[in-house]
Amino acid sequence: MTPLPPGSTIGILGGGQLGRMLALAAARLGLDVMVLDPEPDCPASRVSARHVVAPYEDPEALAALAAACGVVTVEFENVPALALETLAGLGVPVAPGPRALAVAQDRVDEKTFLNGAGAPTVAFAPAASAPEAARAAEVLGGRVLIKTRREGYDGKGQAWARSADEAAAVFDALGGRPVIVEAPAAFRRELSVIAARGRDGAVAAFPLAENVHENGILRRSTAPAAVSPATARQAAEIARRVLEGLDYVGVAGIELFELPDGALLVNEIAPRVHNSGHWTQDGAATDQFEQHIRAVAGWPLGPVEATARVEMTNLLGDEVGQWRALAADPACRLHLYGKREARAGRKMAHVNRVSPL
Amino acid sequence: MTPLPPGSTIGILGGGQLGRMLALAAARLGLDVMVLDPEPDCPASRVSARHVVAPYEDPEALAALAAACGVVTVEFENVPALALETLAGLGVPVAPGPRALAVAQDRVDEKTFLNGAGAPTVAFAPAASAPEAARAAEVLGGRVLIKTRREGYDGKGQAWARSADEAAAVFDALGGRPVIVEAPAAFRRELSVIAARGRDGAVAAFPLAENVHENGILRRSTAPAAVSPATARQAAEIARRVLEGLDYVGVAGIELFELPDGALLVNEIAPRVHNSGHWTQDGAATDQFEQHIRAVAGWPLGPVEATARVEMTNLLGDEVGQWRALAADPACRLHLYGKREARAGRKMAHVNRVSPL
Repeated sequence: MTPLPPGSTIGILGGGQLGRMLALAAARLGLDVMVLDPEPDCPASRVSARHVVAPYEDPEALAALAAACGVVTVEFENVPALALETLAGLGVPVAPGPRALAVAQDRVDEKTFLNGAGAPTVAFAPAASAPEAARAAEVLGGRVLIKTRREGYDGKGQAWARSADEAAAVFDALGGRPVIVEAPAAFRRELSVIAARGRDGAVAAFPLAENVHENGILRRSTAPAAVSPATARQAAEIARRVLEGLDYVGVAGIELFELPDGALLVNEIAPRVHNSGHWTQDGAATDQFEQHIRAVAGWPLGPVEATARVEMTNLLGDEVGQWRALAADPACRLHLYGKREARAGRKMAHVNRVSPL
Repeated sequence: MTPLPPGSTIGILGGGQLGRMLALAAARLGLDVMVLDPEPDCPASRVSARHVVAPYEDPEALAALAAACGVVTVEFENVPALALETLAGLGVPVAPGPRALAVAQDRVDEKTFLNGAGAPTVAFAPAASAPEAARAAEVLGGRVLIKTRREGYDGKGQAWARSADEAAAVFDALGGRPVIVEAPAAFRRELSVIAARGRDGAVAAFPLAENVHENGILRRSTAPAAVSPATARQAAEIARRVLEGLDYVGVAGIELFELPDGALLVNEIAPRVHNSGHWTQDGAATDQFEQHIRAVAGWPLGPVEATARVEMTNLLGDEVGQWRALAADPACRLHLYGKREARAGRKMAHVNRVSPL
């Protein structure tokens, strides 16, 4: 694919804050955005050239996207496969591709892929019934984390079990859906690497971020994380293997566990720009949103070196009310998402607190 | 005025590249934009929540703006006075205010104001007829620059005369409209200072830029400019006097001549974000577009220190075709305006070439 020239239109499935920040980045590069989101007043709609208000599987909406767009991308991984197949059938490129999205949509497929690609994970087993969940817990040593295979985010759709009996109960509590049963990771820190792969196969990984979650939701990322050269090398190698293994095009967020000896395990892959990469907006030579647009549009990737140290904090729910104090703090760069309702726990904004490297 | 909270709407008169970059900055702060521009497909329209397609003086359009917006600002100085009066009559704040725009619209009023505010300019005289132009040229020493009092930009509406006779001829050639006759400035360099004044009266000036024009159009700005501490102080003092003297709210660009002894004269005031301030997007703690939005929305001003050295180059007409090579240059940050037609001399994009301070 030749690079999409300025003036082209990029389609985005999903118009939340990630779609919004992708649209802003596309605009800087002279590219228009057409967003598909069923929500009439979604955050991305107010900064996009066009907004199609329809369900993601709506054939007419997808046809409109295919007609207008040089490429279609996504802001969330749980895009219905039917939507992707419909777009493919209409001949419009989708990036990242359907396989990358399919792998990321199923936690068992994801971990199976990762281990096959040489990107280590915790031990795991699939389970499709309460007895299977109990048996898996037994095999994995008793204390296990059980997650639905599909869907769930920000800590939803998962629970811990301390025994085989509890595992069976958790299976039922999660709705009796197929699950993955995971051995615990005795990690020292949670890290992530945001990496991109271009249409030309070039891979570029940003410096690592160190992440702190609260109640399953990312609270804070600090970047560049202080890591050993060996850990940085391992992260870059994992990113390369994952992106090449998926024939990936675009930015992906790869969540990592750092073990006490500095070795890394992959927790999960987000086939999209990632909350733990928001620091790049004020601390890297290219931000992750522009990098994603560059990749899917077939442009060369931008430089990824850090230009500042950043502590990124999510503002959840009514914490967004802190905007006035944060706007007056000369170290803070505010990013507000334009969401109308500050529901409890909802990601409303983030703030990048910058300091010299 | 209390700060406009996130979710509010800011009106912008004019939807060119400056309006577009203002809209992108407003979006980062969670503010919506409603742009008024007669051009249906103007650059800002594709990144704004709402676009009213109408002449600037259209009463219904202005009523729609007044109804939706917490404040209205401008991307160009030659806004019809009637539009500003209509908005004022409808009770919506306009920033910068009508007086600042009126002063900047008339080159004689502007220089009269500047000298009164203690911001020195070249010697000048108004002329409303060919004989007056000839007499003014005589008084000012023969060689003079003659400009129409109103309108004209990027070198249009002005010409040099080398004698009183030529001055009379230039007056006629400029259409017989009232003019300003200016003594030449024996300047060493062209500089500019981009400064902001908040609703609270706070003033903040970015580091100076050094500017090179070609055929009357800005070609390149380099910032921070290498200037003596005395020159930097004088520029900051001029900015303060100008903005306070106009009771200004928002960002203004002040074009300066640096004389051989380092003293500064003011060439002109642009009561808006300014082409020579585009370097701030990739080289200052806050960019001029966010700074303007902060000011007009009643937010505190952001920090103005330089974070990188930037050489900003305008891409005119088909020079925008360089985007592919520039996108591959890791030192370059591209900003494309989304204009459909690359007419000769038209500002299509700019590139900020960054290097460490």
